[in-house]
Amino acid sequence: MPESLPRATIRRLPRYLRALEATTDRESISSEELAAAAFTNAAIVRRDLSMLGFSGIRGVGYDVDRLRAHIRAELGLTADVSVAVVGAGNLGRALANYGGFARRGFRVVALYDIDPEKIGEDVGGVPVKPLDELVEDGRRGRIDIGIIAVPGAAAQEVADRLVEAGVRSILNFAPTRVDVGAGAEVRQVDLATELQILSYYRSRA
Amino acid sequence: MPESLPRATIRRLPRYLRALEATTDRESISSEELAAAAFTNAAIVRRDLSMLGFSGIRGVGYDVDRLRAHIRAELGLTADVSVAVVGAGNLGRALANYGGFARRGFRVVALYDIDPEKIGEDVGGVPVKPLDELVEDGRRGRIDIGIIAVPGAAAQEVADRLVEAGVRSILNFAPTRVDVGAGAEVRQVDLATELQILSYYRSRA
Repeated sequence: MPESLPRATIRRLPRYLRALEATTDRESISSEELAAAAFTNAAIVRRDLSMLGFSGIRGVGYDVDRLRAHIRAELGLTADVSVAVVGAGNLGRALANYGGFARRGFRVVALYDIDPEKIGEDVGGVPVKPLDELVEDGRRGRIDIGIIAVPGAAAQEVADRLVEAGVRSILNFAPTRVDVGAGAEVRQVDLATELQILSYYRSRA
Repeated sequence: MPESLPRATIRRLPRYLRALEATTDRESISSEELAAAAFTNAAIVRRDLSMLGFSGIRGVGYDVDRLRAHIRAELGLTADVSVAVVGAGNLGRALANYGGFARRGFRVVALYDIDPEKIGEDVGGVPVKPLDELVEDGRRGRIDIGIIAVPGAAAQEVADRLVEAGVRSILNFAPTRVDVGAGAEVRQVDLATELQILSYYRSRA
């Protein structure tokens, strides 16, 4: 297992990947183009990619196909990734059917809920299962990433269950922080951040 | 109107603000603490804040209350911001009731849809209105930010309507790019990016 990359570098890899996936018409891409996609500068791109053991050719840039495959491998995206969504409310249902997931190799395998009315439902091909089955399903190794899509008050309990199920990567949409041990990685999605950035532009319009 | 800040700086302001909002127990905060919240380094924090005309005191840091008020003003967050969500499907409904918006001063004033079955519904206090009323509502000046929460195939048409309605700040959740003129700012939310970052950690677990 290679050394872990700096967190800031890891955060830029999906942006580089997006630029590479959009580059279908030529064989090379410059560090400046990658920098624009990741909101950084070319020197940081070159440093990031050299940490992956990758170097460009001066005046030519980086080989698109090789770099794309390399970053996909680095991100563990070489096989389908199983995702479980906890909470079969509006947000959970929206995530279960989010078009941008499947296309990138993320497969939502189940929704979990505690509401007996919802259990057994089929949400666009994704079954709603009782929350009580989460731990067992996870222990069978069927959940790579868990998404928390429950109200804030229930988020910590769901996080605990996901950890108990052996899920080590958690995406939290509840508007409250959750605490997990060192054995798991949580990313907090705060949709208000995006609105705040837009607000800057609006206030100058 | 002051000069526009660099885009990368603008993207960090909400993260600084979050750190400042979480700092309720003391009067000052260091550039290192702000850097950790924004995934950057202290030199960049100092440069960003000096562009806002703000400087810290060596060995003490920045005045939390003043800096918080300053960034809120910079982001145009001094009064409530009106948000319209187009698409009253699962995602639109989830956004209309997202707890993290109201708490930060973003008020969803209406959902718009074309489905006659949905029009007139009340989604947690937010009315579902016919899409045909969007342009008129916007021209009356009632929409600061528009959110696109429709399937990809309809996203561009909705973006066009928002622009026609005079909305200059658009958040696009549809998994497809939309094109607007220079008069509007679009931010694309790609939830798969978050999963890709998590996938990195998972693949090393």
